Amino acid sequence: MDTLFQALHFDQNGLIPVVVQDWKDGQILMMAWMNREALEKTLKGPHVTYWSRSRKKIWVKGEESGHTQGLKELRVDCDGDTLLIKVDQKKAACHEGFRSCFFRRSDGSSLTVTEKKMFDPQKTYPRGGKI
Amino acid sequence: MDTLFQALHFDQNGLIPVVVQDWKDGQILMMAWMNREALEKTLKGPHVTYWSRSRKKIWVKGEESGHTQGLKELRVDCDGDTLLIKVDQKKAACHEGFRSCFFRRSDGSSLTVTEKKMFDPQKTYPRGGKI
Repeated sequence: MDTLFQALHFDQNGLIPVVVQDWKDGQILMMAWMNREALEKTLKGPHVTYWSRSRKKIWVKGEESGHTQGLKELRVDCDGDTLLIKVDQKKAACHEGFRSCFFRRSDGSSLTVTEKKMFDPQKTYPRGGKI
Repeated sequence: MDTLFQALHFDQNGLIPVVVQDWKDGQILMMAWMNREALEKTLKGPHVTYWSRSRKKIWVKGEESGHTQGLKELRVDCDGDTLLIKVDQKKAACHEGFRSCFFRRSDGSSLTVTEKKMFDPQKTYPRGGKI
């Protein structure tokens, strides 16, 4: 039986995509990326940690907003190139104020916001909050 | 209001990651990739279609196994760089015989198979079935 890190295939940039699911209701909250260090930090806890591709740095989710994530379950896909984590999400995952980043539904042409905002991003992220 | 394709940001390879969720029970079935053509084919139906990065070709999920997916819902994330689709999955999504590709759970070091196989991959994929 492989151990976790033996089973994982990080991409050419040393990253692996992470699907993030609410551990209670199964809602998909976001998709983000980890490098090896981010995964090690996540496993140590207490907060889920990613690699920010835009800021090119380790990113403790919620470090600015307080909307942290606690790791409840970690799964690895068949090819070892994607992670699925189930998390206990404080308040909301999306920097635009929604619980899930997937707050827009499409019929194939237009997009419709189907969720309610849970906070005002301008108050929560005075420095912009962009991941 | 943006239209769907205006809102999307395909990566430097022309691809966008797609999180695939069972529309009935919310289980995450797999993560795959689409290019513009795959998304257009998916929207036309009847079967969800991806871009196979390993085979470098358009890939109708289930074309070999019969385990096709019908699109039930399409969502776009805040940054327009990830799709979430909810699908009606015929039998099982994973080419290794499990309903979900995320059939292994990890405690941070070891990996444990937590799901039951739903079919024998060697019978279903005589040509290998590797995506």
